[in-house]
Amino acid sequence: MLAKHIKEIAYSAREASRELARADSHIKDLALSKIAGLLIEKQDEFIRENNKDCKKAEENGMTGAKLDRLRLSQKVFDSMVSGINDVIALPDPVGEISSMWRRPNGLQVGRMRIPLGVIGIIYESRPNVTVDAAVLCLKSGNAVILRGGSEAINSNLSLATVLRQALVETGLPASAVQVVDTTEREAVVELLKLEELIDVIIPRGGEGLIRFVTENSMIPVLKHYKGVCHVYVDDSADMDMAIDICFNSKVHRPGVCNAMETMLVHKNIADTFLLPMVERFTKAGVLIKGCAETLRIIPDIEAAVEEDWPKEYLDLILAVKVVEDMDEAIAHMAKYGSKHTETIVTRDYERSQRFIREVDSSLVLINASTRFNDGNQLGLGAEIGISTSKLHAFGPMGLEELVSKKFICFGNGQVRE
Amino acid sequence: MLAKHIKEIAYSAREASRELARADSHIKDLALSKIAGLLIEKQDEFIRENNKDCKKAEENGMTGAKLDRLRLSQKVFDSMVSGINDVIALPDPVGEISSMWRRPNGLQVGRMRIPLGVIGIIYESRPNVTVDAAVLCLKSGNAVILRGGSEAINSNLSLATVLRQALVETGLPASAVQVVDTTEREAVVELLKLEELIDVIIPRGGEGLIRFVTENSMIPVLKHYKGVCHVYVDDSADMDMAIDICFNSKVHRPGVCNAMETMLVHKNIADTFLLPMVERFTKAGVLIKGCAETLRIIPDIEAAVEEDWPKEYLDLILAVKVVEDMDEAIAHMAKYGSKHTETIVTRDYERSQRFIREVDSSLVLINASTRFNDGNQLGLGAEIGISTSKLHAFGPMGLEELVSKKFICFGNGQVRE
Repeated sequence: MLAKHIKEIAYSAREASRELARADSHIKDLALSKIAGLLIEKQDEFIRENNKDCKKAEENGMTGAKLDRLRLSQKVFDSMVSGINDVIALPDPVGEISSMWRRPNGLQVGRMRIPLGVIGIIYESRPNVTVDAAVLCLKSGNAVILRGGSEAINSNLSLATVLRQALVETGLPASAVQVVDTTEREAVVELLKLEELIDVIIPRGGEGLIRFVTENSMIPVLKHYKGVCHVYVDDSADMDMAIDICFNSKVHRPGVCNAMETMLVHKNIADTFLLPMVERFTKAGVLIKGCAETLRIIPDIEAAVEEDWPKEYLDLILAVKVVEDMDEAIAHMAKYGSKHTETIVTRDYERSQRFIREVDSSLVLINASTRFNDGNQLGLGAEIGISTSKLHAFGPMGLEELVSKKFICFGNGQVRE
Repeated sequence: MLAKHIKEIAYSAREASRELARADSHIKDLALSKIAGLLIEKQDEFIRENNKDCKKAEENGMTGAKLDRLRLSQKVFDSMVSGINDVIALPDPVGEISSMWRRPNGLQVGRMRIPLGVIGIIYESRPNVTVDAAVLCLKSGNAVILRGGSEAINSNLSLATVLRQALVETGLPASAVQVVDTTEREAVVELLKLEELIDVIIPRGGEGLIRFVTENSMIPVLKHYKGVCHVYVDDSADMDMAIDICFNSKVHRPGVCNAMETMLVHKNIADTFLLPMVERFTKAGVLIKGCAETLRIIPDIEAAVEEDWPKEYLDLILAVKVVEDMDEAIAHMAKYGSKHTETIVTRDYERSQRFIREVDSSLVLINASTRFNDGNQLGLGAEIGISTSKLHAFGPMGLEELVSKKFICFGNGQVRE
C-alpha cells in the first residue's frame, strides 16, 4: 500500500520531468514569480498551519534551536520570498552549450547542459527548505520530491499547495513538485529504493538523518555528514588578521557546518598569538580545549583528548593544537577533518600555494573566514546543500550541480572508416 | 582473511593516492613513458603469460569472440603501447583552474581540478584494459585497483609487475597501481564494501558483470548496462546519406555498445528508403526484424515482437519500425532506449534542433553514425568507459571525468559580517 503510493509519486514525477526538461526559461521563471506572489497572498494561511506544527512540537517537548528552525518567522518568510527573486535573476543552467569543437572529419562536437531528471530532497524541521529546494529544482528543469520532517507536515503541505497551483497556472505539470503526504519513516525507505525513477537524493539535516539516508539508498546521494573545519595560523601570519579570521570562523554562527572546530597554531608564534586570541574567545563565551603545549601557555583551560580532534561541536567550544609546521597541520586535517573547509592565515607565498594545492577539502581558503563556504557567499547565487564527496559535486551545490551534460554532435553524413 | 587482504590493498591505494595527487605532470608522464618502454622490452614475457591464460581458457571450452578478447595479439599490444603515448600528449587535467571570479568583498573565488582519489576498475577478459585503465588513472593523479577476470590472471599480474616497476623507478608509490591477485569472486564483493577507501567503481564488461557490481556496491558506480542505439530516418533525409549512416551504424562493428539496434523510419519515405536499405543490409548478412508496416513493404523478413524493441542484439540483427513522425520516434527512444546514442538523419532545421534538445541520451547526433560515441572519436583523447547515468558523467569518460573540482579562495582578511 505505502510502497505503491510512493512509487506512484515517483512515477508521476518522472513523467513531469520530461515536460519540465523541455520548458523554456521564461515559462519556468513565470512559475517562480507566481510562487512568490501566491506566497505573499496566502501568508496568513501558512502561518496558521505552521502554528499548528509548532504548538504540537512544543507539546511534544521540542524547545530551543530545534523549535526555532521549525518556526516560519516573518524574517524566514521574507528571505524565502526574496530568495525566489534571486533565483529568477540567475541564468537558466539548461541548454547552455559549455564548449564545442570540430573534429578532423568535420564533425562539430559539443556538450549541452541538461536537467538531471527527478531529485529527492529529504530534510528536517525547516519548512522554508520546501520552497527553497523546489525553486532551485524547477529553475534547473528538474522534478522534485520533497520529504520533510513529520513535525513540519502541516506547514509543508500548505506550502506545496501553492507551489502546485503556480505550476498549473503556468501550464506546467503539477507533479513536478510533490510533498510526500505521509509521515511514516517507512515512506523514506520506499523512496530510496526507486533508482529507476529518481536520479539523485539530497538529504539536509543532522548527521543521523544523513547516515540513515545513505545506508538505505539505492539512488546516488549528494551530502556531507559533518563539517570539522580548521584554521591553520602560520608563523608568518599577520596576527591581527589571524585573530579576526579565527574569531569570525568560530563565533559568527557556531551551530553551522562551516564554523571552525579546531584551530592549529604554528609553534613559533603560539605564545604571542594564543594569549590575546584565547582572551577574546573567552570573553565571547568560547570554551577552549587545548593540547599539552596550549595548556603550557594558557594553564587555566580544559585539556583536549583524542576524541576532540574529529569532533563537530556545533557550539561555542574550540579545540586548539600547537603544531611543528604546516606539514603537521595538513596531516592533522587529512586525519581528523571532514573535507569540508580549511583556511590558512599566512603571509608566505610558497606556503599559501602549497596549502591551496595539497589540502583535500571542498573549499580551501587563504586569509579568509571558513564561514564563506556557502553558495551565496561564493557567488553561486543559491545553494541546495554542500557535498564533501567528490563525485559530481564537491562543495556548495548551486544550479550548475543540479544539471548534467550530454554530448551533441552536428554532422553532414560522417561514418566511421 | 580475504576481507583483510582486500582492505590492505585499498588502504595502501588510499595512502598512495595522496602522494600521487601532489605529483607534478612531468613525473607522471615520465612514469607513463617508462611503462611504454618496459612493455616493449618485456613483450615476450607477457605473450608467454597470456598464452598460459589462453591455453587454459581453451581447455575450459572458451571459443570465438571471448577467446579473441582474451588474446594479447600483436595488434592489441601495439595499440596498447601507442595509447600510452597518446595519453602522455594530453594535458594534465589536475591543477587546472577552470574559472575564477571576484566577489564584491574582494575575495577571489575559483574552482581547481583535483583527482578523485582511488578508482576501482572491475573488468573481464581483455588484459589490455589493465594497462589502458592504469595509464588514465595515473595521468589524472588517481590510484587504481584493478580486478580483471580470473581467465586473464596470469596476463594481468605480469602486466602489473611492469606498471609497478615503472612507478618505483620514477619515485612514485608502487601501491598507486594494484592488481587484485586472487581470483575468488568474493574478493569483488569485499572490494565493493570499502566506501571509505575507494571513491568510485568503473565496471567494464557484459551486462551481467555490471549488474552484479551495481547491486553489491556501497561505492558510487559509473557505468552503462547496455546500448540500445537508434537511428531515426526523417522524411526530409537525404536518402543516400541515410543509407550510409544506417549501414555504418549497424555493420561497422555490430558487437559493440554504440552499434545501432533499432532503425526508425518516417512513414512518408518508408517505401523508397526501406527497399534499397534492406537490400544492402541483407547482402551484408543482417537479419531484419520488422514491424507490421515494414513487413507490408518487404514481406520476406521476420516479424518483430515487443521483446525486440528494448533488445541489445550485439550482432548482425536489426529491428525496424515505421513511425508516424519524429514525435513517435522520440517517444519510442524514451520508452525502449538506454540513453546511450541516438541519431537523426534529416535536412529539416527545426527538427534537427528539436531532436538535439529533446532526446535524452549521452550522445545525440544529427546526420552522423552512432559509432562516434567513443572518447577517441569525439576528441577526448582517451576513454575509460561510457556512462549512461547523469550523475558526474554522461557519455564517454575521458580524463576530465576522472577528476573533480574543489573551490579555492584567495582572501586578504575577509570575515563574514
